[in-house]
Amino acid sequence: MKIDGTPYRSVWVDQEDGWTIRIFDQTRLPWALEILRLSTVAQAAHAIRTMQARGAPLIGAVAAYGLCLALRADPSRDAMERDAAMLREARPTAVNLAWAIDRMLAALRQVPDASRSRAAYAEAAAIADEDVAQCEAIGRHGVAMIEAIARRKSGPVNLLTHCNAGWLATVDWGTALAPMYMAHERGIDLHVWVDETRPRNQGALLTTWELGRHGVPHTMVVDNAGGHLMQHGQVDMVIVGADRVARSGDVANKIGTYLKALAAHDNGVPFWVAAPSSTIDWAISDGVTGIPIEERPATEVTVMTGRALDGAVLPVRIVPTATPAANPAFDVTPARLVTGLITERGCCAANPAALARLFPEYA
Amino acid sequence: MKIDGTPYRSVWVDQEDGWTIRIFDQTRLPWALEILRLSTVAQAAHAIRTMQARGAPLIGAVAAYGLCLALRADPSRDAMERDAAMLREARPTAVNLAWAIDRMLAALRQVPDASRSRAAYAEAAAIADEDVAQCEAIGRHGVAMIEAIARRKSGPVNLLTHCNAGWLATVDWGTALAPMYMAHERGIDLHVWVDETRPRNQGALLTTWELGRHGVPHTMVVDNAGGHLMQHGQVDMVIVGADRVARSGDVANKIGTYLKALAAHDNGVPFWVAAPSSTIDWAISDGVTGIPIEERPATEVTVMTGRALDGAVLPVRIVPTATPAANPAFDVTPARLVTGLITERGCCAANPAALARLFPEYA
Repeated sequence: MKIDGTPYRSVWVDQEDGWTIRIFDQTRLPWALEILRLSTVAQAAHAIRTMQARGAPLIGAVAAYGLCLALRADPSRDAMERDAAMLREARPTAVNLAWAIDRMLAALRQVPDASRSRAAYAEAAAIADEDVAQCEAIGRHGVAMIEAIARRKSGPVNLLTHCNAGWLATVDWGTALAPMYMAHERGIDLHVWVDETRPRNQGALLTTWELGRHGVPHTMVVDNAGGHLMQHGQVDMVIVGADRVARSGDVANKIGTYLKALAAHDNGVPFWVAAPSSTIDWAISDGVTGIPIEERPATEVTVMTGRALDGAVLPVRIVPTATPAANPAFDVTPARLVTGLITERGCCAANPAALARLFPEYA
Repeated sequence: MKIDGTPYRSVWVDQEDGWTIRIFDQTRLPWALEILRLSTVAQAAHAIRTMQARGAPLIGAVAAYGLCLALRADPSRDAMERDAAMLREARPTAVNLAWAIDRMLAALRQVPDASRSRAAYAEAAAIADEDVAQCEAIGRHGVAMIEAIARRKSGPVNLLTHCNAGWLATVDWGTALAPMYMAHERGIDLHVWVDETRPRNQGALLTTWELGRHGVPHTMVVDNAGGHLMQHGQVDMVIVGADRVARSGDVANKIGTYLKALAAHDNGVPFWVAAPSSTIDWAISDGVTGIPIEERPATEVTVMTGRALDGAVLPVRIVPTATPAANPAFDVTPARLVTGLITERGCCAANPAALARLFPEYA
């Protein structure tokens, strides 16, 4: 999407700089727009681990390109398997990471060492391009619902989203935000409530930034506010992304998603999950018991980074010293609370039968 | 309760300093323990308006003492009525504020000017002492439920609370925290999950501070985490306070309470609201449509105060410049999601009939 009028993707290859990989340092946004240069697989793994690159689909693409960087240094199959295992461990919850690595390995194992690196860049580019096409398709399928709401009400269509499932989280367009960007481009009057998304504040920092830079009207609220907004008719539809979807339709997404789904259900607000099929984990039936939830460091909760009056960006402690904190990073929304899934093949209900009809090859 | 072993109340009269009023500056906690001296009604109103004094019961007591300060300056009935109206406007949602002012006016209108100030201090002291007795009674009624849970499980009883309904929010003991303090004093093994409570972070700043200083085990979590914890059996009981309870049992409390009530309901976790009867607004039947919700400044959402590495406590901006933010300060939890109310007279279901049985004089 656009930053002040200029189109970007969130990961790209710089062929003139030794086929290095470029990403935005998302831990620096919105305070600084810094483009990172990744030239080793260790740097790629570090970027994933430290969430310089974050968002399930983008993690997959960066991991694929990370394997390309590994093969530039050592194109042997042994080295590839070792570096693939290392990349896979960088973030345990994101299924796209394992999916992208598996796809790369399948495409590259039988390729001779001499041409493996070139083949890897081609496969990674295919993963990135397919992700863009998938997100655009999700946008197309999702925008139809926004248009339907716009037709039956006066005033802006009010959407609510949690975390950042925008173009920064994918290669372009985003998942949850793709229908919103497409609605905006079609001239639909819309307004987005952006959840802050504690503890890492991806909504407050990234979603507001990308919507603002692209020109989409939005208002930021604390995570606590969504229930009240829905209770008072101020939300027409919720769209969130997903880190992993079970075959049952249970959805693992950023911590707090489950609470918004409960509020949507209680108030009759449609709750949609936008996710490419690579996010669906066909091996897991019960998301609540089957999807492992990453416990992240307590300092993400107790320390927050912001910009002081003098312009300096610095961390501040926001709880008394020595207060213990827990930090489960994701939660699982049971399928019964999900109105439906928006995938690259279309929309479907969040249940095994509907998912199987849309993706018969996995069922 | 105690601060590192020394007992305190949250508001008291300093008779040796011209009958001025002392409160903690709760906007400075936990970074500094600063005791404020209020010597005029304007200072008392300012303390309420800026939340140096906050929490429904404490606001009532400080407003009552604020009227005493007014009468020290001008004991006439006209001045009293004018200053009472000014105090009443300091926070629109807290029903205790209006309740305390009404009680003071009823007690003082017929008193001669010459003795009105003295009578006011006596009435304000009665309000404060009755609040302490009420909170202690709430603790006694609530602790029975915690004891019952402790009897049927091994390991600590896990409680969850939102915002700060502790002794800092009342005159002593607190409302939601009173049963927890009493359980702790009775030697029950308990652990409290403390919601951060964005945007003003009363949980992260005040509840953690008072529990920690008194010695009660606790862990702070972001507001997003509670649903996940309940889904995984890590919460035995939720206890929150209330800013206003409708006669129907609908509960207005800090924004986000409704989301926790939904999660508790979805997971079969008991959800109790601890509130003295002065919090019950018998004139309102439907809390969702009848209780006005204060919209507070956007800067409470976009700017956060914390302590930098060098020890300085300073505000930092936590969203991109010019991002609009909305800040509804409270939400209403429908009675159907409330297991029951813990009042100074005992526990009861959150419905008009049960409330009327406990408080027949208002029904």
